[in-house]
Amino acid sequence: MEFKSPVFLIDKIKVKSNLERMLKKAQESSVIFRPHFKTHQSVEVGTLFRERGVDKITVSSVSMALFFAEHGWDDITIAFPLNLLEMEEVNKLAEKINLNVLVESSYVVSELAKRAHAKMGVFLKIDTGYHRTGLSVGDLDEIDTILEIIQTAPNLSFKGFLSHAGHTYHAKGKEAILEIKNSAAFQMQSLKGRYVSDYPNLILSYGDTPSCSVAEDCTEFDEIRPGNFVYYDVMQYHLGSCSLNDIAVALACPVVALHPNRNELVVYGGGVHLSKEFIAADNQFQLFGYVVRLNENGTWGEPIPGAYVSSLSQEHGIVKLPEQELQNWKPSDVLGILPVHSCMTANLMKEKTVLID
Amino acid sequence: MEFKSPVFLIDKIKVKSNLERMLKKAQESSVIFRPHFKTHQSVEVGTLFRERGVDKITVSSVSMALFFAEHGWDDITIAFPLNLLEMEEVNKLAEKINLNVLVESSYVVSELAKRAHAKMGVFLKIDTGYHRTGLSVGDLDEIDTILEIIQTAPNLSFKGFLSHAGHTYHAKGKEAILEIKNSAAFQMQSLKGRYVSDYPNLILSYGDTPSCSVAEDCTEFDEIRPGNFVYYDVMQYHLGSCSLNDIAVALACPVVALHPNRNELVVYGGGVHLSKEFIAADNQFQLFGYVVRLNENGTWGEPIPGAYVSSLSQEHGIVKLPEQELQNWKPSDVLGILPVHSCMTANLMKEKTVLID
Repeated sequence: MEFKSPVFLIDKIKVKSNLERMLKKAQESSVIFRPHFKTHQSVEVGTLFRERGVDKITVSSVSMALFFAEHGWDDITIAFPLNLLEMEEVNKLAEKINLNVLVESSYVVSELAKRAHAKMGVFLKIDTGYHRTGLSVGDLDEIDTILEIIQTAPNLSFKGFLSHAGHTYHAKGKEAILEIKNSAAFQMQSLKGRYVSDYPNLILSYGDTPSCSVAEDCTEFDEIRPGNFVYYDVMQYHLGSCSLNDIAVALACPVVALHPNRNELVVYGGGVHLSKEFIAADNQFQLFGYVVRLNENGTWGEPIPGAYVSSLSQEHGIVKLPEQELQNWKPSDVLGILPVHSCMTANLMKEKTVLID
Repeated sequence: MEFKSPVFLIDKIKVKSNLERMLKKAQESSVIFRPHFKTHQSVEVGTLFRERGVDKITVSSVSMALFFAEHGWDDITIAFPLNLLEMEEVNKLAEKINLNVLVESSYVVSELAKRAHAKMGVFLKIDTGYHRTGLSVGDLDEIDTILEIIQTAPNLSFKGFLSHAGHTYHAKGKEAILEIKNSAAFQMQSLKGRYVSDYPNLILSYGDTPSCSVAEDCTEFDEIRPGNFVYYDVMQYHLGSCSLNDIAVALACPVVALHPNRNELVVYGGGVHLSKEFIAADNQFQLFGYVVRLNENGTWGEPIPGAYVSSLSQEHGIVKLPEQELQNWKPSDVLGILPVHSCMTANLMKEKTVLID
């Protein structure tokens, strides 16, 4: 396979194996599997899900919902606080597909109640400790008010409570991740206990790839929404969510310069391709990706020991390599970079992607 | 002006004033003005330059050169180490326009000499201390070899030495930036002294917005290539390159949730809109942008004191605001964010831009 400029490589076999593992966990846990499609934003990768029977998905914007609805997905949750400015688009979607929206205040839900012109489901966003957004489990007055508004709105139906434990991304190790998941489960179960008699079908929907990856099962919930697991990345590897071999994407980057005096080479591949997301360690060490050798067919092996992307400009990537390894490379060669955060890289590279069979 | 989702606002008056200031400095310094277009990547903004007589530009990739060549720009330097894998495109460009490429090794220039099928100019990349890429001023053997190869290649002509002092971005204050510029000037002048008798028209080309902004003049060089100055951003403000009022771009973001208990609001506007670039300070403080109130016509005033973007997910932005300020906002309002790094934000928002008259 030949590359002239940065290309985002997706290893279909790894994607399928990541999907299979998560699907099995969802099935064995008897939960609804509603994967988050913000990671890949790809029709082709979506098809791999559909082939395995997945028909419910999560997205993080109205425009993403419109995109996937156009491509035949008809059961979509927009897991982002409802943006009232897009009510026109939300109504259009709700006319066409089974749409769920997310609210977290009586203000927004009362506006929604007035302006919803088609049937839609409503999830309540619950903050189980990430503190990005959502209601606390203890905000019972506000939760009651929201449920009353939904009850009286002819086009709205209450679907359940939804949480994203994004603080697992800052957790140190598997035990810490499981603690976060257990705490979230406890909080959400307490809500279920309180409201299930009024809403026997209410769904506890739970997200985040680290929790869903390291946990043995997800039986405390009714639905899971992991997204990143389809590709994984260096950050997930550092969190313990996956092995290096599970990382299903790499950025192909042409080598353009060598600097043997500082054990570096320069690739065409920068912040506009990988994103500037990095992993920080002591002594100002920053890691923007691992480095792999690409095979003829576009797949790759284990990362080259001691090699990593040490900095990024707009178009340049600086790769540190052990001395003996640097000798194997020259300008015009193409190496692969395993991204730190695959969601961001996939978003930047949407137009330049190759799915490898 | 109404916005439903994140939109990149460009204040034409500020752009013109930033351009005028830099143009004046170039004219008074009697240097060629070859602005870097990687910052805006915009035909419309490019037109503002053309209207002021600018006809030479810099870009950072072959694809950007192709883009601007299609839009009538016919004197372009690709200020990125030549990517031999794109020789086909480079040759096509060189047939059509005045093209300059950048080399930094005898290996690459000898390949170029063999494969250049149309006339093109060649700059030698000089590393004056940034240590991203380029030859050191002391690498005289390699420089001599490169010049000999160029001399014997019928399609190549040596244009001069090009340096980008990107380490000004890590400099603390105006004095430190000027020291870097002075050191770069000294190094490049020494090269000119050595080679000018053989190449009387050789050009010393110098980049970076901090240097070109804080310096009184740029008379030590023959050409300047700043790019970011057209928009500036919060990073440049922190470096002392510009005033807050000079920042010519803002991201319009709908407010979607309020969290008065922690003086925060949530906007639709995240890492896929702003980029994840941030300014770090002590105690893990991170700043992803300043916050402004948008006027009816899409322009904005000074940043709201004490307000800033404290974190970003893929689509969410978390804004910290003083308590009394938070009361002025509700979901469906739209606020503006001044980006930390406008080049990255402009790249992400290419398709969703409004140029405000």
